[in-house]
Amino acid sequence: MDGHDIAALNDQRDRLLAQRTIIMTALTDEDAPEMGVTPLISYDGGLFIYPSRLSSHVRALLTRRHGQFLLLEDEAAAQNIWARKRMKFNASIEDISRDDPLFGPLCEEFAKRHGPTMNLIRDFSDFHMLKLTPLSGVLVTGFANAYAVSGADLVITEHLKAG
Amino acid sequence: MDGHDIAALNDQRDRLLAQRTIIMTALTDEDAPEMGVTPLISYDGGLFIYPSRLSSHVRALLTRRHGQFLLLEDEAAAQNIWARKRMKFNASIEDISRDDPLFGPLCEEFAKRHGPTMNLIRDFSDFHMLKLTPLSGVLVTGFANAYAVSGADLVITEHLKAG
Repeated sequence: MDGHDIAALNDQRDRLLAQRTIIMTALTDEDAPEMGVTPLISYDGGLFIYPSRLSSHVRALLTRRHGQFLLLEDEAAAQNIWARKRMKFNASIEDISRDDPLFGPLCEEFAKRHGPTMNLIRDFSDFHMLKLTPLSGVLVTGFANAYAVSGADLVITEHLKAG
Repeated sequence: MDGHDIAALNDQRDRLLAQRTIIMTALTDEDAPEMGVTPLISYDGGLFIYPSRLSSHVRALLTRRHGQFLLLEDEAAAQNIWARKRMKFNASIEDISRDDPLFGPLCEEFAKRHGPTMNLIRDFSDFHMLKLTPLSGVLVTGFANAYAVSGADLVITEHLKAG
C-alpha cells in the first residue's frame, strides 16, 4: 500500500459505513440471488440490521448464515455517476435472540439513529436482529480506484486493478 | 388491483426507471452472488447498461444471461428510511455487439444522459452493451406497500403482503 494515503482511504470507508442503509443479497433455497435494502447501525464495534423474514432475501440470509452486502453513496452525492463510491463485502450472519442482553440496547440504537419506526416494529416477531461479520470485500473510491478490504474491521489491504 | 391508484403506481415505477444507476447481482461460476452498480439508460423501449467485464458480477451476467436488478431512490430522498422506494426485478441479458446498428445510438444516449465519460470508455473492449429484458419483480412504494410487476414493460399486476 506504498504511495496510497491510508488515512484518506480509511475516511472514505468510514463514510460508507455511516450510510443509513445497506443493500444485501443472499442465495435462496433455489440458488437464486435475492436482493433487498435495510437500515444499518454500528454498535459496540459491530454492524447490525433488523429486517423482516417476510422478505425472501432475509429468509435466505437466515438459512445461509452468509450474504453479500453493499454500501453505496447516494446518486446525488456522486462526483462521477460511473464511479459511485461504494464498498461491498461478504459477511457471516449471527441471529441475536430477543432474550440476548444486547437486544434492548440495539433496538434503542436503531430508534436513535433511524427514528420511531423501530418502536413500532420492535415487537414484530418476523423481524430479526442480525449481526454482520465482514470477511472480505472491495472498496471503490473512484474510476479505476479499487482496494481490497479484509476481516471484521474491513482493513484496507491492497490496491486492485478492477473492482 | 381494485382500490389502487394505478396511475400513481405507474408514476412511482417510472420515477424509479428514471434513476441514473441500477444495482445488479448475478451468480458466479462458484454459485456465489456478486453485486455491482452501473449507469442505466432507457432507449427505444428497452433498458441498457454498459459495464466492464473486469468486474466479476459482469462476467457472471455475461455467462448466466440472467441477473437480478434493483432501482433504489437515494437515502436523502427517502421519506421513511425503513421503506426506501425501490423496484427489483429478474431480467434476461442480451449482449449488443459493437457492429450492431444500435451500438452507436446507444453510446450517444449514454453520453447525453451520463456525461463525457462515455466517450472515454466507448472503445474499451472490456465494456459490454447489455440489454435487460425484465421478467418479473416487485415494486415497493412504502411500508407494507409492495406490488408485483411483470414482463418487459414491468406492468403492475398485484398488491402483495410482503416485498
